[in-house]
Amino acid sequence: MKAELAVVPTIEFVAVLAAAFSGFAEARKKQMDPVGVFTVAFVTAFGGGTLRDLLLDRRPFFWVQHVEYVVLILVLTLAATPLLRLARRVVPETAFVLADSIGLGFFSIAGTSVSLIAGMPFIVAAIFGVVTGVCGGLLRDVILNEVPLVLRDGKPYALASFAGCWFYLLMVQAGAPDPLALWTSAALIVAVRMIAWRAQWTIK
Amino acid sequence: MKAELAVVPTIEFVAVLAAAFSGFAEARKKQMDPVGVFTVAFVTAFGGGTLRDLLLDRRPFFWVQHVEYVVLILVLTLAATPLLRLARRVVPETAFVLADSIGLGFFSIAGTSVSLIAGMPFIVAAIFGVVTGVCGGLLRDVILNEVPLVLRDGKPYALASFAGCWFYLLMVQAGAPDPLALWTSAALIVAVRMIAWRAQWTIK
Amino acid sequence: MKAELAVVPTIEFVAVLAAAFSGFAEARKKQMDPVGVFTVAFVTAFGGGTLRDLLLDRRPFFWVQHVEYVVLILVLTLAATPLLRLARRVVPETAFVLADSIGLGFFSIAGTSVSLIAGMPFIVAAIFGVVTGVCGGLLRDVILNEVPLVLRDGKPYALASFAGCWFYLLMVQAGAPDPLALWTSAALIVAVRMIAWRAQWTIK
Repeated sequence: MKAELAVVPTIEFVAVLAAAFSGFAEARKKQMDPVGVFTVAFVTAFGGGTLRDLLLDRRPFFWVQHVEYVVLILVLTLAATPLLRLARRVVPETAFVLADSIGLGFFSIAGTSVSLIAGMPFIVAAIFGVVTGVCGGLLRDVILNEVPLVLRDGKPYALASFAGCWFYLLMVQAGAPDPLALWTSAALIVAVRMIAWRAQWTIK
Repeated sequence: MKAELAVVPTIEFVAVLAAAFSGFAEARKKQMDPVGVFTVAFVTAFGGGTLRDLLLDRRPFFWVQHVEYVVLILVLTLAATPLLRLARRVVPETAFVLADSIGLGFFSIAGTSVSLIAGMPFIVAAIFGVVTGVCGGLLRDVILNEVPLVLRDGKPYALASFAGCWFYLLMVQAGAPDPLALWTSAALIVAVRMIAWRAQWTIK
Repeated sequence: MKAELAVVPTIEFVAVLAAAFSGFAEARKKQMDPVGVFTVAFVTAFGGGTLRDLLLDRRPFFWVQHVEYVVLILVLTLAATPLLRLARRVVPETAFVLADSIGLGFFSIAGTSVSLIAGMPFIVAAIFGVVTGVCGGLLRDVILNEVPLVLRDGKPYALASFAGCWFYLLMVQAGAPDPLALWTSAALIVAVRMIAWRAQWTIK
């Protein structure tokens, strides 16, 4: 929890916003009504962390402690269509992918850190890190009635997260101070994901 | 919990039955076998409340305390096909929609009340009310491999629930006695849902 | 928990392996990448027990206590395609169905036993037994975007589990020693499932 709270709020804000926007985009593609748009954005942003906390039997959830994020998604839902159009025109695609990568990196390492504090063995902590990082998108796809992208597109998305989580665990094991381990590993995930995106790596 | 228990058993019975019947109808449409029919009816009736209790870390579940409802759904499953046909011929559609609305109203307010007692902030209590009211149907649709109706048909189903939950919270905040707040808000949800159905409101 | 631990590790190993293999086969059919193959095998093997433990509010999960199984599935994933091809050629179909039946029998009775110890009423313990036995496959199908096979193919899969769970409960109630009740009921499930498979029983 310490690790989660220690992260600069700006990064956290970017991560939540990136996840919510990916939810907006998918929900709009599927012709959802406003209730659907809000639900899908909410699940994409908080589903991974909520599932992790359910598995760890940990309360309160992140979004219960930070209801301002819930209000933000509620407000953004009302403006989702024009906002998305504007964002697509103004923001270059690289910025979108970068925001998404920051989300992946931040959520994954926060998830691993929380699991480690809860006494999980290393491999379980790494898996819970991946769950935190990617299960928001997985639940989004299940609700939208699609085979989850993360399980079939061959892009090293979950693998980047898994590698970063292990890197974090090894740094902590080696005695590195927690903030250093956290930032290095999250940065590693962002870097791997961005390079993989540029180079169009696939592992299929 | 008090609020939940205070509700007249007849209303509760109507709510559970309405949800189970909607599950029977959907499962039959999808050609499920008896195991599927039971599962889908069960999930539609108790899925929302069970998900809420999981999120609140609250035990025992409603249906574990009232196993008579589980037995009832088990017995009804065996007679689902003839029963559905009979019900469709004898009962006017308005009665079906009314029963369903009562389910929505009762489950939503009960969910909000329970969440408030569990110490949730207002907006989270309202969201958990909606979860209790609509997630049974949402889980039913996910199992039946469809994009959940509640997220895409533009009918103010979840919105009626959300509005009613806030009305309940404001009444409680204003010092209204709990039974009054509960009955007024549930009635409000039923009324909005019935009017929206008659007038064919959509919010898309 | 005692009952679970009392089961000979070989049986447990066969049950987990059978479930994982069914996950491998389905994931490959759907053209998943390695991340998908691992996730689907993992969910098929541990999804039912994890869902039961979530509902019972019980920790740690089986697979958190036995991380060697997680490592095993991770290793098998890397060799899934050639392994599956080899297994299909070398192992007769009867052996596959038998392994799957042993999984169903073992997981179902273990789930009932655990629920009984947690103080659940008989009917709930029987339902949690079925959840433990079949929900791994159900969650696998939901993730793979299919209507769950167990709910629609008319094969007495969940029913065999349900009958066996009640048999176990009645034996325990009648004062039978736990290991006897466990082995007899699990054997009953395996027998019913194998006979139903041979005779192509359907209940639709």
